[in-house]
Amino acid sequence: MTPHDTAALPAFLQACQHAIGADQVLDDPDDISPYVTDWRRRYVGRACAVLRPASTAEVATLVRLATQFGVALVPQGGNTGLAGGATPDASGRQAVLSLRRLDRVRAVDPINDTITAEAGCILAHVQARAADAGRLFPLSLAAEGSCTLGGNLATNAGGTAVLRYGNARELCLGLEVVTAKGEVWNGLRGLRKDNTGYDLRDIFIGAEGTLGIITAAVMKLYPQPTARITALAGVASPQAALQLLALARDTAGALLSGFELMSDFCLRLVTHHFPSQRYPFAVPHAQIVLLELSDGESEAHASQLIERLMERAFERGIVDDALVAQSLAQSNAMWALREHIPLAQANEGLNIKHDIAVPSSRIGEFIDTTDAAIAAAVPGARMVTFGHLGDGNLHYNVQAPAGVDPRAFLAEHQARVNRIVYDSVHAHHGTVSAEHGVGQLKIEDVARYKSPVELELMRALKATLDPGNVFNPGKVLRCG
Amino acid sequence: MTPHDTAALPAFLQACQHAIGADQVLDDPDDISPYVTDWRRRYVGRACAVLRPASTAEVATLVRLATQFGVALVPQGGNTGLAGGATPDASGRQAVLSLRRLDRVRAVDPINDTITAEAGCILAHVQARAADAGRLFPLSLAAEGSCTLGGNLATNAGGTAVLRYGNARELCLGLEVVTAKGEVWNGLRGLRKDNTGYDLRDIFIGAEGTLGIITAAVMKLYPQPTARITALAGVASPQAALQLLALARDTAGALLSGFELMSDFCLRLVTHHFPSQRYPFAVPHAQIVLLELSDGESEAHASQLIERLMERAFERGIVDDALVAQSLAQSNAMWALREHIPLAQANEGLNIKHDIAVPSSRIGEFIDTTDAAIAAAVPGARMVTFGHLGDGNLHYNVQAPAGVDPRAFLAEHQARVNRIVYDSVHAHHGTVSAEHGVGQLKIEDVARYKSPVELELMRALKATLDPGNVFNPGKVLRCG
Repeated sequence: MTPHDTAALPAFLQACQHAIGADQVLDDPDDISPYVTDWRRRYVGRACAVLRPASTAEVATLVRLATQFGVALVPQGGNTGLAGGATPDASGRQAVLSLRRLDRVRAVDPINDTITAEAGCILAHVQARAADAGRLFPLSLAAEGSCTLGGNLATNAGGTAVLRYGNARELCLGLEVVTAKGEVWNGLRGLRKDNTGYDLRDIFIGAEGTLGIITAAVMKLYPQPTARITALAGVASPQAALQLLALARDTAGALLSGFELMSDFCLRLVTHHFPSQRYPFAVPHAQIVLLELSDGESEAHASQLIERLMERAFERGIVDDALVAQSLAQSNAMWALREHIPLAQANEGLNIKHDIAVPSSRIGEFIDTTDAAIAAAVPGARMVTFGHLGDGNLHYNVQAPAGVDPRAFLAEHQARVNRIVYDSVHAHHGTVSAEHGVGQLKIEDVARYKSPVELELMRALKATLDPGNVFNPGKVLRCG
Repeated sequence: MTPHDTAALPAFLQACQHAIGADQVLDDPDDISPYVTDWRRRYVGRACAVLRPASTAEVATLVRLATQFGVALVPQGGNTGLAGGATPDASGRQAVLSLRRLDRVRAVDPINDTITAEAGCILAHVQARAADAGRLFPLSLAAEGSCTLGGNLATNAGGTAVLRYGNARELCLGLEVVTAKGEVWNGLRGLRKDNTGYDLRDIFIGAEGTLGIITAAVMKLYPQPTARITALAGVASPQAALQLLALARDTAGALLSGFELMSDFCLRLVTHHFPSQRYPFAVPHAQIVLLELSDGESEAHASQLIERLMERAFERGIVDDALVAQSLAQSNAMWALREHIPLAQANEGLNIKHDIAVPSSRIGEFIDTTDAAIAAAVPGARMVTFGHLGDGNLHYNVQAPAGVDPRAFLAEHQARVNRIVYDSVHAHHGTVSAEHGVGQLKIEDVARYKSPVELELMRALKATLDPGNVFNPGKVLRCG
């Protein structure tokens, strides 16, 4: 979308100032700068303004003005996305619509186990308000101190608790959305069951702001677990890790709340770049699993369960070594290893990142065949493979061979490596974006791997719900 | 939709015979009769034919023919729906599209915990195939011996395991759908995480066959529980039942797999009409809760947990009496009480049924105020209130006063009682159809209580995905 003419921009900005106050329409380049650069600094856009409405009604007014003046809106929450989905294009004709000032928790209902919060609420704040009411809001991810609930929903965020509680989609019961007509759809229902027509909620979740503007949501709450037990297990292969996963599910059932895979090389990188971190076992293991149980019953019960699981795993020869955390400090140390992997990788130098998922029954074969294909294509490339094995979701990253300049490596090999990985993902019935979304980053990959029928259905949805292409054009799929 | 002209019908039927075989195009009135009457015998339609394709490709061909000849299709599975959603209208120009012959289980993957099955598979057969692989397919409802997976998905079926495992929607990972263009969308993905664009799957789930024809699905599997423990608790009020629910969630967490409410009057009806059924307590209680834990650990652990729950409930004065089943026979006897309620109600005579949900924090107030409003409007009316309290879902039914002819009662009071109940549901932010869908039965109620914005979004979806109104016209919402 382009404005009807460039001369219309001043009139648009003036109307926005009138609608939400001149202070909330930023157009100074210094003020705008943080909003037009993505978190990973891969994308730098331009914007005619940053609009900062404070209420759903103000958002609706701005959408009507955007349509009237032909200005596209790029919705943004905490600006922590990993796919450039909240960064405007280079035209300078798009406006960033910051939802940060819609930050009220409207209601907490500990009996219905729901919290109703606005799109701009910081995730950690939603968690804290749930905890104040004695409940758990389980969505949890690295950016929780600055990402927003609206962004979490627009990107269907995953994180570390998906195995037990699901993605943002599964945690959402109802939405409030401003449509392309500038109308407010009040779908803020706190119901576990409602079969009265089409599921509008899930159309907007994960659509990355391209179909409507999420302004508030009703999210599910859960009982707070009374005990969390963490353990590390050394295993010989991804296949053995999968056997452990099956055993853990059968032994601990719904108490299993985390199951993360880390290759030996991942932990080598961590201990190399962060000497305070220690390799957890006396001898190296090809793969290390971090697993966690969250128990509402008691510490003793959780300990007993994890001991039983590890006993069975040893008996069956699945696990070669295991450590069960005996204190919160030990548990935190185990999670710290996992959390330091992306940091260690960054210290090691630029690398080629993939956020993929395949059916978990195919993970072993996927890793074996894809590792081999990359080794053949780029001898010496180092695989940094870790992630949420319990969800079939791997961060399957590729680091330059030791001693090779990372920048030169990326320039020469990134496109080829991406193609090898994504072709393999596709052959294994997987996805090229498990939890990070499409944004600008993967728009061509999505077009390549989705069927024409699916792309046509997606385009039809976009054309119906946003006929003027006002909402976040150039993200998720190319239109027209 | 009407055919271009009635003369086109013979040509349509001939083309269908050519496409799927003459034997599979039923047009004899006797053959057709079971397909045009709904399960509760509230609706009797007419059909130009019943089409029985055997494959997705045949469904696609029939959809193209239907579009070409202007014949509407009414998709049907086991024909056990409770809202007339699978019954054709009275015109005789619609064709029933029976999916029953698409009955293959295409794959069972016990490691990825998925089963891929066609729409015509009987639910009990899907459960059995999962059990053969040592896994649980948790969707379970009264009609499971004859309803089909496709119907379960088209209506987003609920049932008795929703509290723990969710509705059909939450159990589905991927779909195969024939679109209105007669194209096949292959969305049969078995992934727990996939953020690559719009959520097409959830558009078709719960749309009651009005947006596309579901031909196959990938469904989630779970570990089989090793122990199930059932208990009954006598409590003084719905409010006390809610306190027990909160305590049960906090004590048993994800192990809580059933929480059903039954009023004293429900059990009086059961013991009156089925003398083999016994009132479970020595003295009457205003409300009886049936609760169930499903435990992957051990019988002993589940027993211990339920004993602890009941102890706490007694200490806090929430529960007045309790019985824990000591054998499978006792557990079955408890569930039999619950399952006999609809049968006892039917024996007592015609009644006014409601399948409603409100946020569980409002259930007590909803029952109190609505009971009072009905008592004022129809003195002597008897409330038969039971259902899935854990989901906020009540079967809130109204029986004629003792001695009053049920037929006359319905004729005189049904419309007014429905209005009282649904107005109250609406005031309590609830839904007029929690798990049975809209079909023909509630099409006017949905139009009354949904906002214009929501209805307009629904109509836009319908117009986009089924522009010719070929798919199940006259269901869910009125078009044009």
